[in-house]
Amino acid sequence: MTSFDVLVVAGTHGNELNASWLLDQWERQPDLVDTAGLSCRRVIGNPQARAAGTRYLDRDLNRSFQPDLLAGDGQEVELRRARELVQDHGPAGFNPCRVALDLHSTTAGMGSSLVVYGRRPADLALAGGVQRLLGLPVYLHESDAAQTGFLVERWPCGLVIEVGPVPQAVLDSRVVIQTQLALEACLQVISESRSGLGLQPKSLVVHRHLRSLDLPRDEHGQPSALLHPLRQGTDWRPLQGGAPLMRRPDGSVIDVPDDAENLMPVFINEAAYAEKRIALSLTQREVWPVLPNWIAALEKLMEG
Amino acid sequence: MTSFDVLVVAGTHGNELNASWLLDQWERQPDLVDTAGLSCRRVIGNPQARAAGTRYLDRDLNRSFQPDLLAGDGQEVELRRARELVQDHGPAGFNPCRVALDLHSTTAGMGSSLVVYGRRPADLALAGGVQRLLGLPVYLHESDAAQTGFLVERWPCGLVIEVGPVPQAVLDSRVVIQTQLALEACLQVISESRSGLGLQPKSLVVHRHLRSLDLPRDEHGQPSALLHPLRQGTDWRPLQGGAPLMRRPDGSVIDVPDDAENLMPVFINEAAYAEKRIALSLTQREVWPVLPNWIAALEKLMEG
Repeated sequence: MTSFDVLVVAGTHGNELNASWLLDQWERQPDLVDTAGLSCRRVIGNPQARAAGTRYLDRDLNRSFQPDLLAGDGQEVELRRARELVQDHGPAGFNPCRVALDLHSTTAGMGSSLVVYGRRPADLALAGGVQRLLGLPVYLHESDAAQTGFLVERWPCGLVIEVGPVPQAVLDSRVVIQTQLALEACLQVISESRSGLGLQPKSLVVHRHLRSLDLPRDEHGQPSALLHPLRQGTDWRPLQGGAPLMRRPDGSVIDVPDDAENLMPVFINEAAYAEKRIALSLTQREVWPVLPNWIAALEKLMEG
Repeated sequence: MTSFDVLVVAGTHGNELNASWLLDQWERQPDLVDTAGLSCRRVIGNPQARAAGTRYLDRDLNRSFQPDLLAGDGQEVELRRARELVQDHGPAGFNPCRVALDLHSTTAGMGSSLVVYGRRPADLALAGGVQRLLGLPVYLHESDAAQTGFLVERWPCGLVIEVGPVPQAVLDSRVVIQTQLALEACLQVISESRSGLGLQPKSLVVHRHLRSLDLPRDEHGQPSALLHPLRQGTDWRPLQGGAPLMRRPDGSVIDVPDDAENLMPVFINEAAYAEKRIALSLTQREVWPVLPNWIAALEKLMEG
């Protein structure tokens, strides 16, 4: 049994190739990534899906970490893998890790961002420290009963690094570089919190998840309109009421509804969310004062 | 038995969604696409792959139209489908079509282009007419023993409309619009050739396929370097000798080799070509005088 500071997961979705490639290269060149003195455990989240070139085999691994599913007897590939990851690397596992960083990519033109699940103080401290270093936007995912069971929730602290745009199944140097940069910033913040030197910004800008929108659909469930060309790649930018939102095949337009005005869309046209019937998600931009208990929680976690 | 002027194929690759969606909408709104008076037969190339959300099930359908394979007894899903398409819609089929237009998309940043296989006069007339209308680049694919058996080769005239960039499994209004525009231009040129009004440019600019380059690979066959960020999205632009071509994980660079200087890359980082070990293809830009026998061949095909 060896304990580690950080679990670094790539390939939780098997067709998101860039972070997995980075981990492979890091394995071959142990000094490739600056870990800021932390001990890191590298793992491919879903190696079977990676080998198959698909997001998952039986079910989305990153929606499979609900406590009841982990405790149940479901035998889907991803449920078994979720249990294995928690047993091997969870805080009470054989090789326990304190923090989990889960590396993802998106087809949406979101650039690099952090995804935080809920409002755990240590997560917010980590996100705040990284936002101070790199200015990355933070997508706060909470209160969505249709989307639960994320990997990092099973560790006492953890977040997702999300980089795009990149098609599924494409290796792109830019995405590898951006992933490494965000990963190294996370590791620096975690390392500094251990030594009590963790710096926080005065405030944290979060994009708080409100709800998601689907495309309009016909009687067979097929989309009868698509996102409007003017919306593609406009993640993080406020929607204007009455601006074009969808385009029907005949060129007619469906406008942004009034109740979405000034909300910030994210995950615009993410390939993997079509099956979840999410064309984009709507967020509210909020500026939160950074609280002293956030960094205290991260420091305590990294103690000893 | 009904004969048609044009066979319009979408979804030859099941995870290229946009043209299939356009055909579905066209089915619902018969006047959605301006056919210039031609009779069109619409077909989804690989419906099983489309349903599965993958490029293909057993083998690439668009490499399955070699005469020996069609005449053989191979039972892969795509071989059976290739035979069925030729039997149903081939020039000697139950519902014969004169021209085949095969609608594809790519993850490469190539914009809209036409792909022509070999130098059949009627194909060149069609490409010339469309280049005159829309200025689309023409990728002339020939002399590549590793890549054969394309669908349109089994019809007396036919070409591929290729639109990108778009990730696999993503519906994008822009790609739908571009696909429809190029399709309508093809139909206009074919229609005008029937009435003897087919206009041709004085010359046809072709990008003639020379060879393809793969990424460098390690002893396990995995890429040890990726395309350099400066190459991404630079399809159709001449390579400079000594410019960055690949980037290793440590940031070191592999330069453009001298023998690629001034060649034009296409299909840069196309997702589906990774398995074919093609990181990009190299072409030679050539300006050909348009020959009178080209349009004569297309006119003859459309007669009666």
